[in-house]
Amino acid sequence: MREREIIAEFWRRMAANDFAAAGALLGPDFVLEWPQSRERIRGAARFIQMNAEYPAHGPWQFTVQRIVGGNGEGVSDVEVTDGVQKARAISFFTLSEGKITRLVEYWPEPYDPPANRAHLVEPIS
Amino acid sequence: MREREIIAEFWRRMAANDFAAAGALLGPDFVLEWPQSRERIRGAARFIQMNAEYPAHGPWQFTVQRIVGGNGEGVSDVEVTDGVQKARAISFFTLSEGKITRLVEYWPEPYDPPANRAHLVEPIS
Repeated sequence: MREREIIAEFWRRMAANDFAAAGALLGPDFVLEWPQSRERIRGAARFIQMNAEYPAHGPWQFTVQRIVGGNGEGVSDVEVTDGVQKARAISFFTLSEGKITRLVEYWPEPYDPPANRAHLVEPIS
Repeated sequence: MREREIIAEFWRRMAANDFAAAGALLGPDFVLEWPQSRERIRGAARFIQMNAEYPAHGPWQFTVQRIVGGNGEGVSDVEVTDGVQKARAISFFTLSEGKITRLVEYWPEPYDPPANRAHLVEPIS
């Protein structure tokens, strides 16, 4: 499936820490949105700069857990680390003519399991 | 697309607060995982009970922002509120023979935009 191939290629280029190469997969009117912080980045140039400037302890590693795609859209679940910082990115891609035109990204953080449902759950080891 | 229809129907039944009806869409070996809290729930019965017992200020409302699907998988982006509590659920569905067999769900929370990329972003209004 074409959407999933493009998303996989995007993460391969990110994993090479070659943000310019990843940026080459973005369409001319590319927009990235982070709804949690209500931030929007427009254009590949700012996307590349943001990644290059992001404070890191070492090269970024990306572990793709899953890519779901179809109908010009796709979603990835990716673990991100620089060896010190660890995060999980859930990324909704919109694609058109082989390019990524829109990316809406979520960064869920760990939280403690609530006590009031402990009788219904088991821990993931 | 069949995956997206089943996921939409799941959220329609959740929006009716009819958790038993939503549970009827789950397969016999259904598993729900919340990676952030490392919790796992097994089986439709516990899923239904967990939803019925969850502390709420009123009926749950679910606003489906997007459903992406294909190849036996699907992802939804849904806003959840009981009129007081507000949350966002990103749900990865695995489907088989018209039933939901696995659900991996993320609950991203708001955070403050970092100052060090303010020169590259604009606020989402």
